[in-house]
Amino acid sequence: MDVRQTVIDLCKAARAATRPLATASTDAKNRCLKDAATRLRAQCAQVSEANRHDVERGRAGGLSAALLDRLTLTEARVDAMAKGLEEVADLPDPVGETMARWRRPNGLEIGQVRIPLGVVGIIYESRPNVTADAAALCLKAGNAVILKGGSEAIRSNAAIAKILSDAAAGAGLPAAAIQLIPTTDREAVQVLLKQSQYVDVIVPRGGESLIRAITEASSIPVIQHYAGVCHTYVDEQADLRMAEEICFNAKVQRPGVCNAMENMLVHAAVAPAFLPSMLKRFGDAQVELRGCARTRALVSGVLPASEDDWRTEYLDLILAVKVVDSLDEAIQFINTHGTGHSDAIVTKHYDHARRFQNEVDSAAVYVNASTRFTDGYEFGFGAEVGISTNRLHARGPMGLRELTTYKYVISGNGQIRE
Amino acid sequence: MDVRQTVIDLCKAARAATRPLATASTDAKNRCLKDAATRLRAQCAQVSEANRHDVERGRAGGLSAALLDRLTLTEARVDAMAKGLEEVADLPDPVGETMARWRRPNGLEIGQVRIPLGVVGIIYESRPNVTADAAALCLKAGNAVILKGGSEAIRSNAAIAKILSDAAAGAGLPAAAIQLIPTTDREAVQVLLKQSQYVDVIVPRGGESLIRAITEASSIPVIQHYAGVCHTYVDEQADLRMAEEICFNAKVQRPGVCNAMENMLVHAAVAPAFLPSMLKRFGDAQVELRGCARTRALVSGVLPASEDDWRTEYLDLILAVKVVDSLDEAIQFINTHGTGHSDAIVTKHYDHARRFQNEVDSAAVYVNASTRFTDGYEFGFGAEVGISTNRLHARGPMGLRELTTYKYVISGNGQIRE
Repeated sequence: MDVRQTVIDLCKAARAATRPLATASTDAKNRCLKDAATRLRAQCAQVSEANRHDVERGRAGGLSAALLDRLTLTEARVDAMAKGLEEVADLPDPVGETMARWRRPNGLEIGQVRIPLGVVGIIYESRPNVTADAAALCLKAGNAVILKGGSEAIRSNAAIAKILSDAAAGAGLPAAAIQLIPTTDREAVQVLLKQSQYVDVIVPRGGESLIRAITEASSIPVIQHYAGVCHTYVDEQADLRMAEEICFNAKVQRPGVCNAMENMLVHAAVAPAFLPSMLKRFGDAQVELRGCARTRALVSGVLPASEDDWRTEYLDLILAVKVVDSLDEAIQFINTHGTGHSDAIVTKHYDHARRFQNEVDSAAVYVNASTRFTDGYEFGFGAEVGISTNRLHARGPMGLRELTTYKYVISGNGQIRE
Repeated sequence: MDVRQTVIDLCKAARAATRPLATASTDAKNRCLKDAATRLRAQCAQVSEANRHDVERGRAGGLSAALLDRLTLTEARVDAMAKGLEEVADLPDPVGETMARWRRPNGLEIGQVRIPLGVVGIIYESRPNVTADAAALCLKAGNAVILKGGSEAIRSNAAIAKILSDAAAGAGLPAAAIQLIPTTDREAVQVLLKQSQYVDVIVPRGGESLIRAITEASSIPVIQHYAGVCHTYVDEQADLRMAEEICFNAKVQRPGVCNAMENMLVHAAVAPAFLPSMLKRFGDAQVELRGCARTRALVSGVLPASEDDWRTEYLDLILAVKVVDSLDEAIQFINTHGTGHSDAIVTKHYDHARRFQNEVDSAAVYVNASTRFTDGYEFGFGAEVGISTNRLHARGPMGLRELTTYKYVISGNGQIRE
């Protein structure tokens, strides 16, 4: 296979598919998604067979048990994928939405209307369900998608992408609306990242090193999903019971995700009342605790936290704890050590809540709630492509709307410029 | 001067300025802009003196008369700059605007709130008024700006930037809100384009080669303002008098700008009635005409158009003319040869108007109006940084809102995730 030519041909086909996709009816897109769900369930055996090859090769290649588990497609997981497709079909179509419309003094009517971005490249690792999830969101938003999955899942991904592409053709949409790069050759990604004349945006899903390497190599805009070093700050005027529930939830409910808490800040005035029972509860839940000197003076069994700890996304049952003297110190600490993802204050004080929301420069800033809510489903967007840590174009949960751009449609009756 | 260190220090200072700027009151920002206008008028002599040095050096260096004119700051032009600052002060502040707010079933209230982008780098050529215009818009949107003007205008730019920076300090804002890179060394831009940890976006203003070189070298997102190869399509059901006025305006009123018409498409059914008088009028206005074979068969004195002509932004009194057989051909031609900037149809036919607006994939799509209206002022945005040809983040005229991003502020009363 000529990898370079294969990728370029695929990009050209995707670009050509954008025109019919941009004007495709919502009905056609939904038919495609529902039909893909039906086909996925009907062809579960074939998908499982492809997946078995991937899993066997992965096992032979020494993949860890955790990675093997992520790779494995059970019947229940295939059904969940199909359900995901149906859910995207049920979401409102963002394309054609008028974002604003106004009339100018000269009578020109200007409308700002949502349209698809065009061609979206998704580069992801391991879990094959991303193939279906990402493709469904891109298609519903009227985009052509080019998928590049992890090499360990290539057969599974190919089987799933084939079903989706067939469903597109069955619904009268271009089959090239959904394409998977059919090679594990690393050159493929490098070629893809240079096709800025055909591809509008790259969304990498994976670890930080993957995202950095892609951003460095890409001549196409990249929407990053970097780490979440999320904080909860327990204010001097917090309801300490509420604070305990929120902090416990933010750390323990699902520690391996980007919106889980990594640093807990506690005001000095409430630290003696709050920390002993809170940290005991964390300890009972097997959370390893690392703290500042003042934390360690209050509670025994806490390891010393290094400067590195304040900047680490553990994604694990580890928590760094710091006592602070003021709201200002907490805000300053979060803006310095955080990653601008999700941060929370627990407080009963109106002005502290207001200042925290205004001054913490993060994509999602919470008062009296767990940072774990930063999520497309929880925000009410339906599914999500990921949580953007970019400042441009899309910030926070990326749903269907974030996969669109807009144009201005201007209606006149002969206006010319003086 | 250590160019590298100078640029890095400037970027760090800009980043540090973002915190106070993000929470600066509208009043403080407006005071700064109005005070800058007052200072600019009061210090007109000093600015003119700095400008005279630039102009003399430009003349000695062999700058063309047109470029020398663009470089020269008369008293009237300094006053116009000051007026521009006052106009930006009068525009609504985009920061803090709630774009959307909703309540989730669990009681969480989610607001999407506009905030500044952060640090904006503007790289531009020749005209010194851009220094004031761009800085004013960035400041009003709460951003710190780093300006890199053309080397031929460095003294003028430095004088203007100093006045703006002094006015910022006078209004209690960071002086580093507005900084100019104080060197003509080409290394400065290369260093700037790598400071992605301090700078959020680069906006280049200038010719296509400048923009391409910057995009290639930048590790920071770039908002491009590429060429406008704009079309007007005269439909078979057009009001031909209206069509003539719109086409004439789009080509002749100001040919040197990106929203001027470069290609005129005419339906074959009306070409015999429309083209002779239209092209005579263009000829009388010194417009050089290049056409397809059918155009040349209808009107004498039209040069043959090459394939290159259909893709050229003349920015001059030159027009390419093509006869087409259908709306479909017109749409296809525009989507193939245009640059996605501004395109118009003149028609009385409802469905042709609707299809043209839906199917032409350009930032601004007009029915029965001149493409010359693609402009921040004409759209009602007030001033503009430029006309983006990007699909991500900002498309079309970039005003204050396009210089912002958003965050989600989430207010709860103890919500945790199950």
